[in-house]
Amino acid sequence: MSENFLYLTRLGIDTHQEPVLYMREDCHVCTAEGFSAQGRVKVCLGDRAIIATLSIVRGDWLSHQKAGLSEIAWHLLGAQEGDKATFSHPKAVDSMSAVRGKLYGQAFTQQDANAIISDINHGRYSDIQLTAFVTACAGNRLNKEETLFITRAMVESGQRFHWDKPQVMDKHCVGGLPGNRTTPIVVAIMTALGLTMPKTSSRAITSPAGTADMMECLTHVTLSFDHMKQVVNEQGGCLAWGGSVSLSPTDDIIIRVERALDLDSEGQMVASVISKKVAAGSTHVLIDIPVGPTAKVRSHSAAQQLAAALKHAGQGLGLVVETLISDGSQPIGNGIGPALEARDVMQVLENHPQAPQDLREKSISLATKMLHMANKGAPAECEQLARDVLADGRALKKFLAICEAQGGVKELPVARHQQTVLADRQGVVSYFNNRVLSRLASLAGAPNNAAAGLTLHVKLGDCVSVGDPLITVHSEAPGELEYAMEFYHQHAELVRIEPESV
Amino acid sequence: MSENFLYLTRLGIDTHQEPVLYMREDCHVCTAEGFSAQGRVKVCLGDRAIIATLSIVRGDWLSHQKAGLSEIAWHLLGAQEGDKATFSHPKAVDSMSAVRGKLYGQAFTQQDANAIISDINHGRYSDIQLTAFVTACAGNRLNKEETLFITRAMVESGQRFHWDKPQVMDKHCVGGLPGNRTTPIVVAIMTALGLTMPKTSSRAITSPAGTADMMECLTHVTLSFDHMKQVVNEQGGCLAWGGSVSLSPTDDIIIRVERALDLDSEGQMVASVISKKVAAGSTHVLIDIPVGPTAKVRSHSAAQQLAAALKHAGQGLGLVVETLISDGSQPIGNGIGPALEARDVMQVLENHPQAPQDLREKSISLATKMLHMANKGAPAECEQLARDVLADGRALKKFLAICEAQGGVKELPVARHQQTVLADRQGVVSYFNNRVLSRLASLAGAPNNAAAGLTLHVKLGDCVSVGDPLITVHSEAPGELEYAMEFYHQHAELVRIEPESV
Repeated sequence: MSENFLYLTRLGIDTHQEPVLYMREDCHVCTAEGFSAQGRVKVCLGDRAIIATLSIVRGDWLSHQKAGLSEIAWHLLGAQEGDKATFSHPKAVDSMSAVRGKLYGQAFTQQDANAIISDINHGRYSDIQLTAFVTACAGNRLNKEETLFITRAMVESGQRFHWDKPQVMDKHCVGGLPGNRTTPIVVAIMTALGLTMPKTSSRAITSPAGTADMMECLTHVTLSFDHMKQVVNEQGGCLAWGGSVSLSPTDDIIIRVERALDLDSEGQMVASVISKKVAAGSTHVLIDIPVGPTAKVRSHSAAQQLAAALKHAGQGLGLVVETLISDGSQPIGNGIGPALEARDVMQVLENHPQAPQDLREKSISLATKMLHMANKGAPAECEQLARDVLADGRALKKFLAICEAQGGVKELPVARHQQTVLADRQGVVSYFNNRVLSRLASLAGAPNNAAAGLTLHVKLGDCVSVGDPLITVHSEAPGELEYAMEFYHQHAELVRIEPESV
Repeated sequence: MSENFLYLTRLGIDTHQEPVLYMREDCHVCTAEGFSAQGRVKVCLGDRAIIATLSIVRGDWLSHQKAGLSEIAWHLLGAQEGDKATFSHPKAVDSMSAVRGKLYGQAFTQQDANAIISDINHGRYSDIQLTAFVTACAGNRLNKEETLFITRAMVESGQRFHWDKPQVMDKHCVGGLPGNRTTPIVVAIMTALGLTMPKTSSRAITSPAGTADMMECLTHVTLSFDHMKQVVNEQGGCLAWGGSVSLSPTDDIIIRVERALDLDSEGQMVASVISKKVAAGSTHVLIDIPVGPTAKVRSHSAAQQLAAALKHAGQGLGLVVETLISDGSQPIGNGIGPALEARDVMQVLENHPQAPQDLREKSISLATKMLHMANKGAPAECEQLARDVLADGRALKKFLAICEAQGGVKELPVARHQQTVLADRQGVVSYFNNRVLSRLASLAGAPNNAAAGLTLHVKLGDCVSVGDPLITVHSEAPGELEYAMEFYHQHAELVRIEPESV
């Protein structure tokens, strides 16, 4: 109804990704439409429309003639102060019946998957509905077919790159291993050797840093579609945030809920990975699956199952997918958190004497396997190529050139507050709990504060004496440091020191 | 940290049941603690504490020295303008790991159930976490043991009545059948016959009205614990809203999420029903399970399974539970929605010639079975007792006395906007879709607007001609009426008319 308009006003309220609308209880629109608090309201402005959650205002600070918007709602609508918008009940979200069906054991069809992903992508799902979808898929409840359906729907929900190359390389790690930041090093090696690798990465899901969070400490990662194209055409590769080029955009919405729940679903993980690779225009993908008692994947058989699901979904969409099942018993590198991981990466590229050797060797083994996939010779030859290009500085030079092309190289931030935990006994480091370490780094402020996180001073098998440094916690705010330290003292089993056997 | 305080201010923003905190991005608390938008913050005032969702304010309308609260947050804290509150990161919700475990197929222990219910009850779960718990339990994923654990935890989370009577009667309907408002009639019959029946009811879950919503049109249902005790001691029974006496209070929090998802989980349903009966101090409970293709329970075998689960949980907590599997193929009574159902109830109690006979007969059959459970004689004798007390007006008199004791009898509201749908063909009414009817009534505004809902003018088997009235839609707002009518025209299969067989 055309008379249902109010003038929009920007209230300057940050509600993260959830659009919120503020409206007077007694304004004519609220009265006519019968909206209720926390209900969903469709807001239309010109040819744009969003669905927002309603906060009902009883105070006099908002006029009857105005509707307030939170920052994300304001930006999604592209609103200007005083714009006239209309308000209505959003259509019932029919695809939720497929989600309910799934909870009762029915499988998704391709049509269900398309409808759900389209509704999520258009912001039609509330947090409650999104969570129901995410949890309905968790615990291995998506079969291979359903995973392929969702993957295909996710590819079609966003933009897609087409490169004029026979081989477009890509890699991915399924995660769960703190500090495992091989991607920038592998991209540097591959592109320095003339291969094409237009890498897009996610921000953190449940970890204290994603590759996009880490790269953001070093350069600009929020590239436009055209800017990313230009960087890849010039440099052969890039290290961009996938969200900014709107590849499989639904994924970022789903990830926010998964992060809040500290939960990954295998089917969602497969759909997320493969859809982004297809949308990025990749042809060959190597997927790193770390296995360990506290990694995301805990057994060799689970890793093989996941590898099969990834390959199945990849094949269904025309990708060559290889997997590398790797050691996930402890973090890789010394840093955990965006800037601390970036420092590790730079040290490896710079051949710094203090560079973490585990990160260096793992990056070389991934690059070796990818060079072999790209027909660059026998494995031993491929390994030599990778080692040479890293050792002689070509990889560093290419990495810096990519950063320059993306917008320049930034200086790494350093956290204002640090506290180091010391060994309280003598012995051998026998165990790390990756999950608890990740949690600790998150509590310290990572990835929201780029400088926050942990530095590990020991590796499995190291001998320590009483008073040796084990872990340094880095925080930007004293509250976060205090909170992280309290958590550490409640969860001291995150690193175990056992007496040396005589 | 004691310096982390701000002065509370009431912003008059209604966010329903979700406490929201508004804080300046650049205030000293936000800076020191590193809070982020949509994050969870613990707010302490004196000996009260809540966890609220943070909206970060960038505008100048909120002072650096103040923190704004939404209405529910204000009430939960019992705040006064200018009170000094402190703000901190809430402790990690450890019980969420049991929810994650459940999603991966692990069963809940009694300890898990206690921790989860306690955390929910203390407002420590965000909507996303609550939804994960609800969906983890949906689709028959709770076994009998787990259901009993959760039921016990829910009983212990709230207040509990103890009546000094050997037999305390109760009834419940698992729902899914619009208009099935037998409870007030059964309570009137039972209490008129001298039995004790302290009935507490829920508000609507996914339906357009719960018994508490319907009773609220006739009298006051938000009774204090002591008021409810007094009504029952005087009258032998009551018809109160369970939420107001804080019986199994977690249930209402869970119900809000279930309503948003239009979802019920069998285990949650059992835990909800049995925990409330135990907390109400009942000893004998009759549970109505309507079965039909579009009722909540769709097959006789599912009804038997649910009956067994209800009996198991009841026995585990010392209740005598009987079940009645009833016809759920069409709505009971003429009205759907709080006030329209209340009118049906009053007509039955008043022996009005237009009273819906199906509602009358179903109420009598339930009362008969309960009288038999209470050892009032053979089934035929019990039925006669029930018919007599209804026919001679004793049931009506008792019902009005209960309403008076609860705070007086109200006049029923009438909706401002009505539209009647007419038959577009001749034939026999052969099918109702209860779910779509409920949805239609909800879209018309029920139960939020008490007068909103539907009146059905036909029953299964009725013959209709073109132009005969089928359904009248009642709304308080033109927007809602329009929206409901649009939905009706998209879902005209909600009532089916087939040609008469010759």
